[in-house]
Amino acid sequence: MEYWCRVTVDGVPRLGLRREEQILIHEGDLFAKPKPTGQQVSVDEAEWLAPVEPRQFLGLWNNLHEAMVKGGNQLPVFPLYFPKLPGCLNRHLADISPPKGFADKVIFEAELGVVIGRECFQPSRDSIDDYIFGYTCVNDVTAAEPLLEDKEFTQWSRAKSFPGFGPVGPWIARGIDPDELQVQAFLDGEKKQDYPVSDMIFSPRDAVWRIAGEIVLYPGDVISCGTSVGACFMKPGQKIEVRIPGLGSLLNRYSV
Amino acid sequence: MEYWCRVTVDGVPRLGLRREEQILIHEGDLFAKPKPTGQQVSVDEAEWLAPVEPRQFLGLWNNLHEAMVKGGNQLPVFPLYFPKLPGCLNRHLADISPPKGFADKVIFEAELGVVIGRECFQPSRDSIDDYIFGYTCVNDVTAAEPLLEDKEFTQWSRAKSFPGFGPVGPWIARGIDPDELQVQAFLDGEKKQDYPVSDMIFSPRDAVWRIAGEIVLYPGDVISCGTSVGACFMKPGQKIEVRIPGLGSLLNRYSV
Repeated sequence: MEYWCRVTVDGVPRLGLRREEQILIHEGDLFAKPKPTGQQVSVDEAEWLAPVEPRQFLGLWNNLHEAMVKGGNQLPVFPLYFPKLPGCLNRHLADISPPKGFADKVIFEAELGVVIGRECFQPSRDSIDDYIFGYTCVNDVTAAEPLLEDKEFTQWSRAKSFPGFGPVGPWIARGIDPDELQVQAFLDGEKKQDYPVSDMIFSPRDAVWRIAGEIVLYPGDVISCGTSVGACFMKPGQKIEVRIPGLGSLLNRYSV
Repeated sequence: MEYWCRVTVDGVPRLGLRREEQILIHEGDLFAKPKPTGQQVSVDEAEWLAPVEPRQFLGLWNNLHEAMVKGGNQLPVFPLYFPKLPGCLNRHLADISPPKGFADKVIFEAELGVVIGRECFQPSRDSIDDYIFGYTCVNDVTAAEPLLEDKEFTQWSRAKSFPGFGPVGPWIARGIDPDELQVQAFLDGEKKQDYPVSDMIFSPRDAVWRIAGEIVLYPGDVISCGTSVGACFMKPGQKIEVRIPGLGSLLNRYSV
């Protein structure tokens, strides 16, 4: 298992490979065998960045059986995705700012994110692991009010793309089996979500394969696999943690 | 008035400034005063590229009064946007390929595109022209079948992001008043769309201002301002032209 991240060192974004309590700084391209520089920083003192800057950051809707049944929704025949726009990208330990005019009804959604490692179009189902770099934690933050403001057009991308609405990280885990994972959310330490990836309608690999069957995916793209029951509104000052045991813990605060 | 484009010269993408029947090749950043190299190519022989590679390529739905009335839709209170994903970008004179499984119901939509020139977040209404680089022709190609495949989730980005579904160009016009323009579509030479920008619910400047009030816009981003009545299916081999008199003409073929 490897854990890859990005951190700020002397004001400059650097790649890092976590080795126990240290982050070994690397140089080069994350997707083309970066090399260690010999420099290291401790995990405790790291200034985290999102581990990638996705060109495409897609989220899935209605991808968990339990949430589908609870919501009275129907089984989708294709992964139902919306893009989260690039300016929403956020990092471990940073604040999520309330959006102007829509601060009262902002929801966290704990999710597993797939990170693409190689450009990919119409891959075979068997080869899909060759295109997946690894897995990470995502909080698919959503403003409920603009989402449903227009009765004829659900504003998915708008509601999910306010600045700070896309925490990703703290790192990307490689060599992990996504189908065995459990995704949890803790709001001020209280468990609010706890669901198995095995409950997904489209497994992470299956979602990537189907989407890449229609559009080009690029290295660094993130597909966040949807959430289950228990997501709820955050109050100013509350801390929200997306925890995936065996993978990582992504902590943010909904700022005042 | 200036017309900026990108063309391939000796296999390399280059910036160009159109001057009558010649394209004056420039070097540098399109948004930071590129300099002429002295090289030129004739317009007739140009190998066109999309004039920008947008980080965000947004389309608007329900932004023309006439189409709204015809569709029985309600007046939106905010520009209703969906992202078109980067792999759909297409260029003047290239083919639009039919998407596998959805080839029979593919629609052209003639639109005016705004190109952003400076990073922009919560700008004042009065300053909006400082952030707009210029205007271009867009064909917001759409596959009708996946759009409406799921009854609970309209798949805007999926339906509009197949490879080749985003022709933009041939150039970006600067120093033009968008509100005076007329947008037309010709299918195999027959006029199918012809609507004034003045019929827009959110004018191009107003749409940019409102969207940038919520999310960061980046240089090169394209906001395509929505279409009006007359858009229809294309048959294999048909030629589709988006023509905006005074701005340009974007020609593509729906390939066999």
